[in-house]
Amino acid sequence: MVEREVDDVAFMRMAFEEAKKGAQEGGIPIGAVLVLLEDPPKVLGRGHNQRVQKRSATLHAEMDCVENAGRLVGSVYKNTCLYTTLSPCDMCTGCILLYGIPRVVIGENHSFRGKGEELLRSRGVEVVVLDDAEIRGYFCEWIRRNEGLWNEDIGV
Amino acid sequence: MVEREVDDVAFMRMAFEEAKKGAQEGGIPIGAVLVLLEDPPKVLGRGHNQRVQKRSATLHAEMDCVENAGRLVGSVYKNTCLYTTLSPCDMCTGCILLYGIPRVVIGENHSFRGKGEELLRSRGVEVVVLDDAEIRGYFCEWIRRNEGLWNEDIGV
Ligand SMILES: [Ca+2]
Ligand SMILES: [Ca+2]
Ligand SMILES: [Zn+2]
Ligand SMILES: [Zn+2]
Repeated sequence: MVEREVDDVAFMRMAFEEAKKGAQEGGIPIGAVLVLLEDPPKVLGRGHNQRVQKRSATLHAEMDCVENAGRLVGSVYKNTCLYTTLSPCDMCTGCILLYGIPRVVIGENHSFRGKGEELLRSRGVEVVVLDDAEIRGYFCEWIRRNEGLWNEDIGV
Repeated sequence: MVEREVDDVAFMRMAFEEAKKGAQEGGIPIGAVLVLLEDPPKVLGRGHNQRVQKRSATLHAEMDCVENAGRLVGSVYKNTCLYTTLSPCDMCTGCILLYGIPRVVIGENHSFRGKGEELLRSRGVEVVVLDDAEIRGYFCEWIRRNEGLWNEDIGV
């Protein structure tokens, strides 16, 4: 629907703002937003990768976002959409599956693409890749200058 | 090997101690330990579910354990074993896959068994289920008295 497309672009902008906030803090610039699909939609949580800032091995952007949304009963997640600037890793994919988040919108999957998208789809999750050129260029540039840190974040 | 069996029992006891610590704090009693497979083995991190204590939606026992182990370069995980009192959920399974932890030892999988074990094995992870009667009985009893909290933790 036209309205959904508008929402997707707006919430992906919000996720990208989170990513840039992460960069300003000296961190890995990946951002995410969890949205409750009401009319109007409601942001339940937003977050960004915290490896540098909190010395965290588990707070990827998607995890930080879900963590910031706080404790929720399981049924709430079944009516949400997760926006993330980058294709999710195995861990974040697993988090999406655990809570049964039914829809995931991805900014780009050129800089990273693991087995997440495929696993999500095989388990019935709707996966949309926006392939946003600005997000792609921004993150590609960052990776070029931060290869060691990036490899640490994806366990390489 | 005989020595490995002894290690498995000892480290599972440590994970169970973590689980019981969680219960003493009023939390969900699941524990985990991440061990570096040196001679002698070295505990890199230990932890327990923090849903109640930290109001966390992401710190399952395995995640708390990996988080407590801190930032590590990817190569370190490739020589570790994760001990967890309960069969891992999708999220914790994904965390194990992200970091390439090659071996997972599970206390029991009667109280919970999702698609984690199967996915781990399909990706080449060695999965050992000890089926420890004491751990099984302890957690089964806890679930009976805490069904709502438990359902929240597994996203039901
Ligand atoms: Ca991330
Ligand atoms: Ca747990
Ligand atoms: Zn991730
Ligand atoms: Zn878990």
